Amino acid sequence: VNDIANTIAAGLLARLRAALGPKGFVDDAGAMAPHLKDWRGLYQGTAPVLLLPGSTDEVAAAVRICAEAGVGVVPQGGNTGLVGAAVPRAGRGEVVLNLKRMNSVRLIDAADYTMTAEAGCVLADLQKAAADADRLFPLSLGAEGSCQIGGNLSTNAGGINVLRYGNARELVLGLEVVLPDGQVWNGLRRLRKDNTGYGLKHLFIGAEGTLGIITAAVLRLFPLPRETATAFAALRDLDAAIELLSIVRAGSGDAVSSFELVPRMAVDLCLRHLPGIADPLARRHSWYALIEFAGTAADGRTAAALEASLAEAMERGVVADAAIAQSQDQARKIWRIREELPEAQVRAGANIKHDVSVPVSKVPAFIKRADAALLSLVPGAETLAFGHIGDGNVHYNLCPPPGADLVAFMAKTEAVGKIVFDIAAEMDGSFSAEHGIGQLRRQALLKYRSPLEVEMMRSLKRALDPKGLMNPGKVL
Amino acid sequence: VNDIANTIAAGLLARLRAALGPKGFVDDAGAMAPHLKDWRGLYQGTAPVLLLPGSTDEVAAAVRICAEAGVGVVPQGGNTGLVGAAVPRAGRGEVVLNLKRMNSVRLIDAADYTMTAEAGCVLADLQKAAADADRLFPLSLGAEGSCQIGGNLSTNAGGINVLRYGNARELVLGLEVVLPDGQVWNGLRRLRKDNTGYGLKHLFIGAEGTLGIITAAVLRLFPLPRETATAFAALRDLDAAIELLSIVRAGSGDAVSSFELVPRMAVDLCLRHLPGIADPLARRHSWYALIEFAGTAADGRTAAALEASLAEAMERGVVADAAIAQSQDQARKIWRIREELPEAQVRAGANIKHDVSVPVSKVPAFIKRADAALLSLVPGAETLAFGHIGDGNVHYNLCPPPGADLVAFMAKTEAVGKIVFDIAAEMDGSFSAEHGIGQLRRQALLKYRSPLEVEMMRSLKRALDPKGLMNPGKVL
Repeated sequence: VNDIANTIAAGLLARLRAALGPKGFVDDAGAMAPHLKDWRGLYQGTAPVLLLPGSTDEVAAAVRICAEAGVGVVPQGGNTGLVGAAVPRAGRGEVVLNLKRMNSVRLIDAADYTMTAEAGCVLADLQKAAADADRLFPLSLGAEGSCQIGGNLSTNAGGINVLRYGNARELVLGLEVVLPDGQVWNGLRRLRKDNTGYGLKHLFIGAEGTLGIITAAVLRLFPLPRETATAFAALRDLDAAIELLSIVRAGSGDAVSSFELVPRMAVDLCLRHLPGIADPLARRHSWYALIEFAGTAADGRTAAALEASLAEAMERGVVADAAIAQSQDQARKIWRIREELPEAQVRAGANIKHDVSVPVSKVPAFIKRADAALLSLVPGAETLAFGHIGDGNVHYNLCPPPGADLVAFMAKTEAVGKIVFDIAAEMDGSFSAEHGIGQLRRQALLKYRSPLEVEMMRSLKRALDPKGLMNPGKVL
Repeated sequence: VNDIANTIAAGLLARLRAALGPKGFVDDAGAMAPHLKDWRGLYQGTAPVLLLPGSTDEVAAAVRICAEAGVGVVPQGGNTGLVGAAVPRAGRGEVVLNLKRMNSVRLIDAADYTMTAEAGCVLADLQKAAADADRLFPLSLGAEGSCQIGGNLSTNAGGINVLRYGNARELVLGLEVVLPDGQVWNGLRRLRKDNTGYGLKHLFIGAEGTLGIITAAVLRLFPLPRETATAFAALRDLDAAIELLSIVRAGSGDAVSSFELVPRMAVDLCLRHLPGIADPLARRHSWYALIEFAGTAADGRTAAALEASLAEAMERGVVADAAIAQSQDQARKIWRIREELPEAQVRAGANIKHDVSVPVSKVPAFIKRADAALLSLVPGAETLAFGHIGDGNVHYNLCPPPGADLVAFMAKTEAVGKIVFDIAAEMDGSFSAEHGIGQLRRQALLKYRSPLEVEMMRSLKRALDPKGLMNPGKVL
């Protein structure tokens, strides 16, 4: 039996090599290694080969060959995900198919405010291509220098501009997808309105490659901001964050591009671990909001609107103090506290991470309840809650008590997660706001989503991928 | 056989009557009549009963009873659709299930910018409920006084605010849906970010009730505009519309709430057929744009931005002349030309209608090509192209030559449609931008969508509604 299996496998590899050519077929162990584990090092898999197709036709050919052989295919972009969705499992013979060679921008139409890009385009390159055409592609997140748009769409990425421009899902007009049997669905329509049947593209967005492989997309563009205004506002208290959000949404013409919650501990961590960071305010406060307005006319209206909003917030006692950046350099320094916080956390040592969401109005109550529950489980620990509060999305981390045994602390990961996710669920929230499911959150999906909902997902999976070969073992 | 069928049918009706009670079970022919035909009078169907469930549980009970009996169910809202999606077919024994008794707003949370509403809420009532909470629900369209939100979502309605706020689909955070077997999917999450599996809600939005019945939804709200600015701008020519769109998107901070194309013929039709309409400009021009900016701070910035944008457009030769409304009354008068145009058309007599979309930048070329083709098919006829050009959505109508035989003219409907849809398809457009498929455009769906795409839709239909009982004969 083993001989037969080996013969079949050898035949499969020969067919894949013939279909993709030497550039598209990598079986060197060293070259494959970075594609077999996730960057956090939580998952280490194996694969008989790494495929690097250079075109949609080559993706289709590879998927068809694997489907005929009954071999699983793991689509991979920049491999920057946090839940193990883009790496193969160990010992399952799954093929990794990385899209990085498909990195052409097929079309930018400024008058149409659209861009058609292949899946392997790096996000930062797309932002730049749009800017070169005097347009904004607003998706922006920490990994933008290496993540790829195909992965961004397959995971329905979030990031710092969601409040104004929506999640990755909202930025897509059309898709091209290689289906599990190797057929190519050309849904690359660049239409704002098109009510001709079911919303097929939405099946593949956020499906983490389990229903097909996104090979290209039509993306929405926006007027390029000509001016931004940035402030670091000390809040009266945590509840004030929600009041301030309403004030700035109205005061900006609903052009708040970012509204990030920053706790005092984040400022202290950055001051302690990163060079060149300064506290933007003279006195210490418990909670801050980092606010950015973006305006598309360079007439000073944006800064004026931010100043007027903060003045109103101070008058109403919502904001205790605020620093408004007077230069791009000052704005960058303020942003460093938010953007380099993950790096400061790494330097500070291990912590237990969660990416939850609740209805926006419930964020303060969620943080207070979760804080109380966790500090009673791990006395002396510190919680670090920060992130995209304008979207109800909290990155909620637990840091060990000073001097604690880290192995013993990290062993509590599951118990801590259960508490955090249970509270989020009780508050109508989600255990994964923007990081997805992958391998890491599969059990949580089964626990926190209703059996009916899981069965609806399974019936879609069966309908589109009856052999179960697309990114097996992920999501469902 | 007939006796057995009648006995089964009688049993079904008795079970439905018992489940829904006298308020929910209507078999009086007079009361049923308006629910069996569409308002344009294109489709006349029959039904054994009209169901008016008062709760989600009653919808579920009715669907379960019908599923067990193998009887089709036609979900119906305000019955204002244009494609025959909400009425039963004739002689098929399909039951009509109208949602109008489910008209409660379950929750408005202003701090959360969300509203949870039942499917039978009339759109205008939801706009008002949001405004009473100092919030905007931006969906707005001609039928808003009678259409229901369940129908709006099931058809992914468009309307006049799509450019700024998106289609109905983009306004939904969560859904409650009765599935074809009578199970209730509670997807009423009010989260901005939730990446826990497939985008299930998007299956039901725009599916015209063929995959399940939407019974409630969580809707996104926005800051309520405090000021609007309205202008009627005469364009240099048709191509200038696209240039002007870019100028006003940038000049407004991307807060253009409406950008409607209006041809001279529309002004003339309104002047001829409607009382109290005035031409906003002294001289005649071939093409106009009706532009509205909305601002959420009452500080005059909105009018200033519109004036500055139009000044730039005139300087660049894009706009030949413009009238800016100096009062709400003037703004209303300008809007009458667009809003009452359908009524003016009715008074003018029969015409052949299409609702197409193309990429925004291609709208002028589409109109020119379609005009040339149709005027060569029907010499002396006039075309009337108007609508949501900011979304690439053109309501493209052909009016008969003066004194023409109307029956002979209307007999060309199919030939005219073929020309219009073929040109739209060649320009990567859609034969149904916001009106949907229903019964009217089923053949067009089969013709203009690829066989693969139709098969993908059918496999979804089979997965979710294997017996084919949800709104049978619609869409697919």
